[in-house]
Amino acid sequence: MAHKASAAVPVKGSKLMVIGGASLVGSATVDEMLARGAEQVIIFDNLSFGGQPNIAHLEGNPKVKVVQGDILKLHQLLAATEGVDAIVHLAAYMTLNFDRDPWGGIDVNVRGVQNVLEACRSNKVKKLVFSSSNAVYGYGPGVKGDLVEGVPFHSEGAPPAAILYGASKIMGEQLCRDAFRKHGQDYVVLRFSTVYGERQHYRAANALYIVETHDAIKRGERPKVIGDGSETKHFVYVGDLARACCMAIEAPSTDVAVNTSGPEPITTLQLVNLVAELSGRPDLQAELVEPDPTKVRLTSGGAFEIVHKAAKDAIGWEPQVTMREGLGRLLAWRDAEAKRNA
Amino acid sequence: MAHKASAAVPVKGSKLMVIGGASLVGSATVDEMLARGAEQVIIFDNLSFGGQPNIAHLEGNPKVKVVQGDILKLHQLLAATEGVDAIVHLAAYMTLNFDRDPWGGIDVNVRGVQNVLEACRSNKVKKLVFSSSNAVYGYGPGVKGDLVEGVPFHSEGAPPAAILYGASKIMGEQLCRDAFRKHGQDYVVLRFSTVYGERQHYRAANALYIVETHDAIKRGERPKVIGDGSETKHFVYVGDLARACCMAIEAPSTDVAVNTSGPEPITTLQLVNLVAELSGRPDLQAELVEPDPTKVRLTSGGAFEIVHKAAKDAIGWEPQVTMREGLGRLLAWRDAEAKRNA
Repeated sequence: MAHKASAAVPVKGSKLMVIGGASLVGSATVDEMLARGAEQVIIFDNLSFGGQPNIAHLEGNPKVKVVQGDILKLHQLLAATEGVDAIVHLAAYMTLNFDRDPWGGIDVNVRGVQNVLEACRSNKVKKLVFSSSNAVYGYGPGVKGDLVEGVPFHSEGAPPAAILYGASKIMGEQLCRDAFRKHGQDYVVLRFSTVYGERQHYRAANALYIVETHDAIKRGERPKVIGDGSETKHFVYVGDLARACCMAIEAPSTDVAVNTSGPEPITTLQLVNLVAELSGRPDLQAELVEPDPTKVRLTSGGAFEIVHKAAKDAIGWEPQVTMREGLGRLLAWRDAEAKRNA
Repeated sequence: MAHKASAAVPVKGSKLMVIGGASLVGSATVDEMLARGAEQVIIFDNLSFGGQPNIAHLEGNPKVKVVQGDILKLHQLLAATEGVDAIVHLAAYMTLNFDRDPWGGIDVNVRGVQNVLEACRSNKVKKLVFSSSNAVYGYGPGVKGDLVEGVPFHSEGAPPAAILYGASKIMGEQLCRDAFRKHGQDYVVLRFSTVYGERQHYRAANALYIVETHDAIKRGERPKVIGDGSETKHFVYVGDLARACCMAIEAPSTDVAVNTSGPEPITTLQLVNLVAELSGRPDLQAELVEPDPTKVRLTSGGAFEIVHKAAKDAIGWEPQVTMREGLGRLLAWRDAEAKRNA
């Protein structure tokens, strides 16, 4: 079918929805949309992961509407998406939750995307931004070097939950492609790398290196690193992702999937020691420990870098916040929260 | 958890179920089970692809029970699997049907496996054989050389339906692995390559090279080959797969995924000319044509071979039927069918 010349939707003046809007990335995206002059932002979230505090600061804002709804209930999505110009769809299970409940993960990550696409079609939502993951490149020794958008999915030796999670994101992306081909649904897929930032939670396996390290240091203990500390992780700051979501809505691009990663990768040892330094305890150096076989781990093989050049080309986005800067903000937020709750 | 020393279930004397038992592979597997002395074989099939003629020869056989049921209806599976010793689960959408109805494909290929695993757990089915596919290695130029069991999933440039199909099989395999880890469900995954043989249908994109070629020759036309005819395909004869399903039940192995491919790969040009030769019209040589952009095609890049050595190690299986022999049987069956229906 013929497609429009531009799939751009302005954030300013538009009615937007963030599904999973009470999450880490969701709440930051809502803030970014409001800062860019959105007319209305609907937070659609089932609040199952306790996101209420993430959006408490928006209470009473006349431009914000909270809908406690479930993407597995299509009628709720259909009602909530009436008149919506663009959607950022973030609701998902990640690997740790997939391990506890694979059935729920498949429901949310696959059936959920199907329902969101149905709602987009039914209510003529102009653009969808779908949060995929660098998990589409998989796990283990095959994942190394430059991870650009055509790299295949490696899974040998990875835990079932991790492979299910990665495959669910591959499916979500392809459902978007299929909707574009079959009825012209404009969309941009953002392949998030591991997110960190203010409002950080404990549900992401890789981000545990930050929050568990910070917790250990607060207790005056040496933080732990699994293995020899040489494993690569590539994070991205939550505020950078919030910008990416808005830029993906506003970009003329459609039918494209791009990586959204931070300025550069880091090793687990460097990360843990950086957290110690920023916490004012550079003396508490990392202790190397053996893996706990009862816990799901996401191992990387060789050194890798998640290349975000295609995101610059497609939506004009580049990360702005270094790990040192972003971790400083995250730790300051955690300290403030701890004081507030003390 | 501790696992049994052997996951072998004898076919002889056992009560077995074939889900998708009225299909090409299903009907051959039922025949093989009966030949090996199964006590009872339950054919569980929704007959949505018109498989009735495939099992017409079994009518009146006291050892065979046909249950017209749907794997999406868990209560039907729970009722039908009571007292069953082992299941071969074959019901699936392939790429062409995924293109027409991705929602149905995800239902059958993902939710269906979940339901089958639930039924296995609930009724203590000792062993599950799950039909995966070489689609777990993906499509396009990345797929070349020896395809052994650790090769990653390539998808760049492939149609959404093909990627969805491949990802659905990856998920099905991982759901089996998860069930083994969480509650000791014994299983063997067989990664079928493209099946061909008696009772061949038109639903498999790669097997169209056989049946459409045969149809053209019957009309006295030159058969068509898309592209330059150098693409690799690796088929497997249906009777060899029926043996593999039985051997996977009987093998002590569990928690393993192996390729089941034919003796050797073939190019599309060789295949089409072999069909012409076996049809008695070697003069009707293949005509090379441009791809039809409206049809889903599964392209391969370089030459490849799907290596089946691991199947020999895990379940003692090797293919026995060459393409020349198997194609001869398939064409003879088609000729007999045409005469019967004339």
